[in-house]
Amino acid sequence: MKVFSGKRLDVEVNRIKLPNGNVLNKEMVHSGEAVAILPLLDKNTIIMLKQFRPVIKRWQYEFPAGLIDRGETPVEAAKRELKEETGFTCGKIRKLTSVFSSPGFSDELIHLFVASDLKSGAQELEPSENLRVLKMPLEKAKKMARSGVIKDAHSVLALFMFASLAA
Amino acid sequence: MKVFSGKRLDVEVNRIKLPNGNVLNKEMVHSGEAVAILPLLDKNTIIMLKQFRPVIKRWQYEFPAGLIDRGETPVEAAKRELKEETGFTCGKIRKLTSVFSSPGFSDELIHLFVASDLKSGAQELEPSENLRVLKMPLEKAKKMARSGVIKDAHSVLALFMFASLAA
Repeated sequence: MKVFSGKRLDVEVNRIKLPNGNVLNKEMVHSGEAVAILPLLDKNTIIMLKQFRPVIKRWQYEFPAGLIDRGETPVEAAKRELKEETGFTCGKIRKLTSVFSSPGFSDELIHLFVASDLKSGAQELEPSENLRVLKMPLEKAKKMARSGVIKDAHSVLALFMFASLAA
Repeated sequence: MKVFSGKRLDVEVNRIKLPNGNVLNKEMVHSGEAVAILPLLDKNTIIMLKQFRPVIKRWQYEFPAGLIDRGETPVEAAKRELKEETGFTCGKIRKLTSVFSSPGFSDELIHLFVASDLKSGAQELEPSENLRVLKMPLEKAKKMARSGVIKDAHSVLALFMFASLAA
């Protein structure tokens, strides 16, 4: 049963039968699929955003990210978000993985990419986006994640997964 | 304005003024704070769960995880969830980091830990929990994350962040 229908998300409460036979009422948030992109400027240098997130009322270090539009593939959405938020277009893009953000209450699936062969251009920000684009050594970003300065789950995941592939 | 108030989560729609002066209506899910624990059996072996997640209707590989109860610290919640879901108590526990799961629509903060010096005991599962406890080489888990078999964001994050510290 749908209990809330918004612009960004819907909420349902459904009666679900589990594999063990138990039945429970489960509250679920449907928020669509998303992408996040680690932009690699050169082997040791990445692009990050410092972005204001109204839901948590904080400026956060994050990689470019956003929802997939209707009719778009994940790769198309990743290229679009990269261009809109950073101005960069990319010659190469490869997928790191796809993960569920928080499967206890949400079905959000996020596709993570590494973009390289970057060419700078003009940003196309939406009025709701407050962000600055930063160049950063990969090693500095890993330190900032270890010390808890970078607090965005998908950005920390992408950083360490990418580093493990590059090692 | 609260638009839904459930057992597991609340939803609000609030009018928010951004740092750039723009004002927008923002849909926000409040779902509380959570913990996830990477249980380290020995230097090269971890414990994982294969758990049914009703929201995404999938069996998932995940580390033990759960919500922090009222009055609990994150460490207390991590030890409790580890015991309830796997049966293991731990002699040592250390924090990896704390991250926001999906700050575009949710304020969920999740605290990630590594537990070691493990002693086996009895699980204390809730009726809603469908899971199996698995021993797994750390390297196998990293391969399963790289190939997309492990799809839980916090588990993949914890795996690669822990591996980068251990390297």
